Amino acid sequence: MIIELKSTVSANDCATFAEKHKAFHITYEGKNYLITGSGVKEIPTELETNTSEHWVFANDIQLASKRFRSEKREVKIGNVSIGGNTKNTILIGGPCSVESEEQIRSSAELLVGMGLSTLRGGCYKPRTSPYSFQGLGLEGLQLLAKMRTEYGLNVITEARDATHIDEIIEHTDIIQVGAKAMYDQGILRACAKIKKPVLIKRGFGTTLQEFVQAAEFVLAGGNENVILCERGIRTFETGTRFTLDLCGVAWLQEHTNLPIVLDPSHAMGYAYGVNPLARACVAMGIDGLLIEAHPNPKVAKSDASQQLNYEEFKQLQKDLQAVAASVGYKMI
Amino acid sequence: MIIELKSTVSANDCATFAEKHKAFHITYEGKNYLITGSGVKEIPTELETNTSEHWVFANDIQLASKRFRSEKREVKIGNVSIGGNTKNTILIGGPCSVESEEQIRSSAELLVGMGLSTLRGGCYKPRTSPYSFQGLGLEGLQLLAKMRTEYGLNVITEARDATHIDEIIEHTDIIQVGAKAMYDQGILRACAKIKKPVLIKRGFGTTLQEFVQAAEFVLAGGNENVILCERGIRTFETGTRFTLDLCGVAWLQEHTNLPIVLDPSHAMGYAYGVNPLARACVAMGIDGLLIEAHPNPKVAKSDASQQLNYEEFKQLQKDLQAVAASVGYKMI
Amino acid sequence: MIIELKSTVSANDCATFAEKHKAFHITYEGKNYLITGSGVKEIPTELETNTSEHWVFANDIQLASKRFRSEKREVKIGNVSIGGNTKNTILIGGPCSVESEEQIRSSAELLVGMGLSTLRGGCYKPRTSPYSFQGLGLEGLQLLAKMRTEYGLNVITEARDATHIDEIIEHTDIIQVGAKAMYDQGILRACAKIKKPVLIKRGFGTTLQEFVQAAEFVLAGGNENVILCERGIRTFETGTRFTLDLCGVAWLQEHTNLPIVLDPSHAMGYAYGVNPLARACVAMGIDGLLIEAHPNPKVAKSDASQQLNYEEFKQLQKDLQAVAASVGYKMI
Amino acid sequence: MIIELKSTVSANDCATFAEKHKAFHITYEGKNYLITGSGVKEIPTELETNTSEHWVFANDIQLASKRFRSEKREVKIGNVSIGGNTKNTILIGGPCSVESEEQIRSSAELLVGMGLSTLRGGCYKPRTSPYSFQGLGLEGLQLLAKMRTEYGLNVITEARDATHIDEIIEHTDIIQVGAKAMYDQGILRACAKIKKPVLIKRGFGTTLQEFVQAAEFVLAGGNENVILCERGIRTFETGTRFTLDLCGVAWLQEHTNLPIVLDPSHAMGYAYGVNPLARACVAMGIDGLLIEAHPNPKVAKSDASQQLNYEEFKQLQKDLQAVAASVGYKMI
Repeated sequence: MIIELKSTVSANDCATFAEKHKAFHITYEGKNYLITGSGVKEIPTELETNTSEHWVFANDIQLASKRFRSEKREVKIGNVSIGGNTKNTILIGGPCSVESEEQIRSSAELLVGMGLSTLRGGCYKPRTSPYSFQGLGLEGLQLLAKMRTEYGLNVITEARDATHIDEIIEHTDIIQVGAKAMYDQGILRACAKIKKPVLIKRGFGTTLQEFVQAAEFVLAGGNENVILCERGIRTFETGTRFTLDLCGVAWLQEHTNLPIVLDPSHAMGYAYGVNPLARACVAMGIDGLLIEAHPNPKVAKSDASQQLNYEEFKQLQKDLQAVAASVGYKMI
Repeated sequence: MIIELKSTVSANDCATFAEKHKAFHITYEGKNYLITGSGVKEIPTELETNTSEHWVFANDIQLASKRFRSEKREVKIGNVSIGGNTKNTILIGGPCSVESEEQIRSSAELLVGMGLSTLRGGCYKPRTSPYSFQGLGLEGLQLLAKMRTEYGLNVITEARDATHIDEIIEHTDIIQVGAKAMYDQGILRACAKIKKPVLIKRGFGTTLQEFVQAAEFVLAGGNENVILCERGIRTFETGTRFTLDLCGVAWLQEHTNLPIVLDPSHAMGYAYGVNPLARACVAMGIDGLLIEAHPNPKVAKSDASQQLNYEEFKQLQKDLQAVAASVGYKMI
Repeated sequence: MIIELKSTVSANDCATFAEKHKAFHITYEGKNYLITGSGVKEIPTELETNTSEHWVFANDIQLASKRFRSEKREVKIGNVSIGGNTKNTILIGGPCSVESEEQIRSSAELLVGMGLSTLRGGCYKPRTSPYSFQGLGLEGLQLLAKMRTEYGLNVITEARDATHIDEIIEHTDIIQVGAKAMYDQGILRACAKIKKPVLIKRGFGTTLQEFVQAAEFVLAGGNENVILCERGIRTFETGTRFTLDLCGVAWLQEHTNLPIVLDPSHAMGYAYGVNPLARACVAMGIDGLLIEAHPNPKVAKSDASQQLNYEEFKQLQKDLQAVAASVGYKMI
Repeated sequence: MIIELKSTVSANDCATFAEKHKAFHITYEGKNYLITGSGVKEIPTELETNTSEHWVFANDIQLASKRFRSEKREVKIGNVSIGGNTKNTILIGGPCSVESEEQIRSSAELLVGMGLSTLRGGCYKPRTSPYSFQGLGLEGLQLLAKMRTEYGLNVITEARDATHIDEIIEHTDIIQVGAKAMYDQGILRACAKIKKPVLIKRGFGTTLQEFVQAAEFVLAGGNENVILCERGIRTFETGTRFTLDLCGVAWLQEHTNLPIVLDPSHAMGYAYGVNPLARACVAMGIDGLLIEAHPNPKVAKSDASQQLNYEEFKQLQKDLQAVAASVGYKMI
């Protein structure tokens, strides 16, 4: 249950009530809210006279629910915005992994030349094998931060586990919680304490319900800048790497108030499918795309088969601009 | 292996070779072909001098393969065409089940008013429970055929099992092989002997490889008018009815030469998601859509939750026209 | 709803009531029952005075439900029985496909030597590719029937589609409805009209609910001799061919009154796993096993990797006898 | 590739080689090994004369592979052992969550009374909702440690994320890496530096290949005491909570040298299925079981439906002893 407390309730009393009723206490647009589990269906007696509004829920999707806030939340990423009434679809590009200064600089220049604002690149790679390339770690993060300074780009990179979440928070503009780290409460709780945008990827074995509940960890902790990212679920089909769940995207659009970014590159696993799938995503009226592009995909240290080369990436932008316009959106 | 025989080989010899080598024999655009299993990697000695061209395959997707015919096949449905170079996306509409003359006539008139050509409606419903509405059977088929005559529409309905396949073939313009009947060789072999278009739905537990192999049954039997229909696969996600596999569609576009029709209604299971998903499908450059629409979805005898009402269906057509144009296609 | 009619109701009236209320009418142990869809929650007024007992259900698992008949049904297969209070676990063996008289005779002799009663062998193979070995068809059926006569064995083979169901019914002792044919109402309705045992395999993409509903087609049609067979479902895991769903078996044991036979050979896909999996199955207290064994698995025309050789099959019997005894069952 | 260096190679040289060739360096039974990615197929020239034996692999399952060590590894848990030639199946019991001293003491006394050695209990619960009971955390750990001291029991609890892995390592005898934390390199790397047994649960969306690769992180880091735990994967079937993958267990037994513990409680999700499934597991000849038992399951703060009460747990032990004996194993 979400309880909106009257404006006459003091900050002190809010905190006292929260503790007593084992509720989260957040402030949002100047108002105070207590959030309990969805099992609570009636306002506790003591709070009755202090409540101005309340929402009862059938499950633990509460703050993210359209029933609480019917309009889509707007999230600022540096000097651009997505969600809200912006009708913007952000195209985020860059390599799977930061491999060298030369490589990431090449990506940064590509993006600037295309008028794009946000650079992606993995530093702590969540590889399933200890014998694969594990990413440049802090060195990679520093390279990303350098590009940010030199080119005025926003940067986004992925937290693999809680041991380096503080570094990620320090050096990036958007914190990406990876598909394999999505249940990691060490990461989620750290992200809840800041105000930077947090992009949470859906685990490939994760239900929509659990996915949005991960967002609730961040929202209930006080950070309202959460973006959901569908990147493919694991099914019996092995002709493609994963199965991009666009039925799930329709469900998220219907039930939640959070901006949605899609990652067709990881879902497909093959460059040939990225363009048609990205067009499909944009036609749904979504808020952004994460696309992997590499100066020379064949020699990439990770995910070689799915990264676009620069020509393909430029063509993609053009194709997506037409589709976005057909549904009243604008690629940024 | 596909072996194209020289034009000097007599029809008699073709048949003899086919029997001797346990191969299918088809003629396509005036040429004779023998098709063996993909395990055969070398031309049998005796055929060497009679072969003008041949194709070796890694798996049993042979006639449907882009490696055999790189251009997409064109399929005529009455007086319209899809596939080939047409850049047409056909919008097929109608109720889940034919319930009464009044209801199916209402659908027929809706389609005619919207300039559409093809009416769908189930007669033999493949219900999983014996206690659910099982369809009107032959009576439904005759109602469909009546609409065909009166309104000049093409009609499509589903074969549930082999016991009524002859009736279906007689009364419809496109034979639909349902998702649950997709492995039914009684149906597939009957469809192989005719020239009417056959739309094969992917089973919800069926791999892409198996799906296209079902098409091979029809193609190898001599009917080249096969359309593939993705309608959602079964995954762990239960927030939506099925999961529409658009990664799989990208795979089919890359690897096969068959037209592709999508069915977002069954995949989603909820009317609210049909419009955004249909837009996603069309943005991929596909050849058609199957959409369920009902004069009054709430009282429908099957699939009540996923059928659009007529206003929603008309809005859908408008929205899709814009998206289709953005990718160089035309809704018909 | 299941309605047990009073013994005073005439056969004529039973039929009239059934038609009027769109109900199935069956007799079971001398009593008359009407079965409607589970949506019916109250006895129709007119039947009230004619009803001696009734059962209301939340879903369409009715006749198969433990709530209707709490004891497990007993099914006779020739001169042996499973289910009921027999505590018998039947070991059914034989090759994947009947390939030749020599091969199937060898299997028959193996079984007789081991004291087993029931021989399996596929005649109409539901291959997903038209280019694979499709089985010997009627010729295979006749070979099986010959073994039945000569060796006094029960035989079981699979119906692939409705076109040959009459032949199968004529020549076998148990009709196997294959995993790919499980939704085939042409087959199910034919099986409902006879009294021979019907073994229904669960489709690899089929929920437990749908699986048992397929049994309801046969039960509601009047044949009470139905056996359920779990043979592996399709999941994201590809290290094994399918995933044997023993959680599902526990669910079936809890909720249904039907005997359960398991097929670990198809689930695993590799001979090395058949013995440990079969032990697991038997330890659950199940009613039978279908095991593929071949005189020379390496040259088998289908499923070569998963068939046991004869030594392995004999060892399996020994191992299973010990496990069965530990849970109070007996291998027959 | 695994390279066994000659005994004449100094410790210093081992380290130098490892760094130069980006290899892991471990010592095992007094011998030195370098482990590179499986992409390396030939011994680096410089190492040729220093190599006494080497193993080439097709994938990154190397140290865990039966091809490297064909015998099953033995792991000591306090004063008991599993794996190796012990033929022991350990029964680990206890509640889902540590809820109070009274509750966990009751569990400890139950175990001691039944002659069992190892107590489980969750302290940091990886709940998917922020609004659910999150476990007692450090307080729970201290309660477990108290039981260890007072009753001489081994204790096992789960690490949820890397922020508290040091506490877990300090207070428990077996470190459990939970299904949702299985990719967490912060946890895996910490576990690699110690010698305590590490039980890794398979993620519910994790392939067997990835699962064993998680073990490789620990093995390659120098801790050879790794236990694999299958606890159910997520499939389309929702009648049960998850699907216990016993085909996967057969695969692990065939391909890896690690002891295997199974968790039927989480897989099934319902107490009624735990006994038959546990019997199935034991019949496969496995090394242990994790079973949830609670003094009063109905009031449990987590997983209420799947926990056994004490009578059911005692009955389970008896039933399992018979099954274990039938396959030559002993319940401990």
